[in-house]
Amino acid sequence: MLGICDIGTYICSNKISNFERKIDFDINDEFIKEKIGFQSLSKSSNEEKTSILCLKAFEKIKHKVDLSNIDCLILISQNPDIKIPHTSAILHKELSLSCNCACFDVGLGCSGYVYGLSIILSFMQNNNLKHGLLFTCDPYRKIINNNDKNTSLLFGDGASVSYISQDYRYKIKSFKFGTDGSKYTNILCEKDTLFMNGRGVFEFSATTIPKHIMNFLKEEKMGLDDIDRFIFHQGSKYIVDTIRQRLNLDKDKAPFDANFYGNTVSSSIPILLENEFQKEKCYNNILISGFGTGLSWASAILQGKKDEN
Amino acid sequence: MLGICDIGTYICSNKISNFERKIDFDINDEFIKEKIGFQSLSKSSNEEKTSILCLKAFEKIKHKVDLSNIDCLILISQNPDIKIPHTSAILHKELSLSCNCACFDVGLGCSGYVYGLSIILSFMQNNNLKHGLLFTCDPYRKIINNNDKNTSLLFGDGASVSYISQDYRYKIKSFKFGTDGSKYTNILCEKDTLFMNGRGVFEFSATTIPKHIMNFLKEEKMGLDDIDRFIFHQGSKYIVDTIRQRLNLDKDKAPFDANFYGNTVSSSIPILLENEFQKEKCYNNILISGFGTGLSWASAILQGKKDEN
Repeated sequence: MLGICDIGTYICSNKISNFERKIDFDINDEFIKEKIGFQSLSKSSNEEKTSILCLKAFEKIKHKVDLSNIDCLILISQNPDIKIPHTSAILHKELSLSCNCACFDVGLGCSGYVYGLSIILSFMQNNNLKHGLLFTCDPYRKIINNNDKNTSLLFGDGASVSYISQDYRYKIKSFKFGTDGSKYTNILCEKDTLFMNGRGVFEFSATTIPKHIMNFLKEEKMGLDDIDRFIFHQGSKYIVDTIRQRLNLDKDKAPFDANFYGNTVSSSIPILLENEFQKEKCYNNILISGFGTGLSWASAILQGKKDEN
Repeated sequence: MLGICDIGTYICSNKISNFERKIDFDINDEFIKEKIGFQSLSKSSNEEKTSILCLKAFEKIKHKVDLSNIDCLILISQNPDIKIPHTSAILHKELSLSCNCACFDVGLGCSGYVYGLSIILSFMQNNNLKHGLLFTCDPYRKIINNNDKNTSLLFGDGASVSYISQDYRYKIKSFKFGTDGSKYTNILCEKDTLFMNGRGVFEFSATTIPKHIMNFLKEEKMGLDDIDRFIFHQGSKYIVDTIRQRLNLDKDKAPFDANFYGNTVSSSIPILLENEFQKEKCYNNILISGFGTGLSWASAILQGKKDEN
């Protein structure tokens, strides 16, 4: 049985304050603090390509990983370093991994970490692989129009890496996935500029996701009370608050915690989840849920290792 | 147990003859027929985006698929329609699939079909999904410099779809994967033009791949004689011939068959494999092997359904 051993993350240190942009966008403190929730945004530099950010995330857990054992490396990104080859091959080079390592990129946005967990766990299990690295990184800085109120106040840049092995702290009980391609134009980047229909994305998040979570729990014969902690994709404070309220959850059970770096796309869930790996005790059950571009969504229930509870 | 039910393919009907380019590139008939082996190349039109080519491939098998049952759709491509969302979400829309369908893109080149088979089979198996579509499509026309002898005589455009379900004709016995990121610059597209170090790619294909196949068979406790048919990525006639000779295989056991359409990247193996699904009897064992950008490689052994032999 494979699971998540540890998580390393990196949030770009260069910050832009949204308070300094109040006049440009005709917004106030209330909007910044309570609606979007992002007081500042981390921004990657020109040199901080996707692979570089991934390597910085890996720095955090490198003392726990024997690189010569890594036999699977997957990167979730829609902003790879270059078009060809896959950026996971570039990471393979930078980490000097063995030629027996399977590498590929997966193109997904905010649902990507949850999908990626299932992809790496099932691929490794079925091919009898033992030590994997799952990276997420989507530096949206590259595709943001700084004059677009719908996007430029929201996104921050970061990366994560999850180390997968048999020596896990959290295993995954089950996954549930969804796609609604008919709404794909709500989050669109045809070539190099991101367009977002904020209202469309909010409505999707506020209606589809709570229903999907309730259906998921029902299928798993679990109730909301069986979940110790909910980690939702940090799309905005308003989105997280709305989903939480619709599920009738206590505030501290479903945190919004991206105030000082922004929506980091597929890295938003692992950045929050990293904290759980630094605690001495595991929770029994954590539900993670990612949703966004596609439109695409995915949830999973993580179970802490029993003898550590 | 899941396997491949059927395969549909599409090869672009618009053709360019390499014989008409002899003067431009100072090459002769011998070079075209025996070395590269591509007498003509299929070229996609401007309208034939990746999703359009995929839908044309799907036309071939649509009478065998109940679209309302499809719960997984994966596209292998490094030339998606647009940057965001994943092209699999666009296919989800065009095929009017259910919201319960998991969709994602995988970024891989010529090894992509073999990787993709393992990704879709393991993802579906572990999530209890029943009916999947695996697409491959990489219209390199978009990234080829027509004056570059190293690339413009080689690549053709096409697409494939493999229908995955329990009602399979071929199941997969096992897979083996590899990556050598240290050589990734041998096939490179930084932004919009493909660069290829032909000699480097040939040397990799001629040395790494035969060894990898022999190791794979050894691990599986099989010999070359246990395999009824070898389907190698159709990189060029010279590459296929060289691998075949180094493995001491009969010519008809390891065909080169891409003479009139070119190297279709991740679609080259399913285009040859499609023929096997039109025969009344299945082979016992087919070995497929893909290799290219990354550098990345992967092989699998397909086993025909017993009661059909």
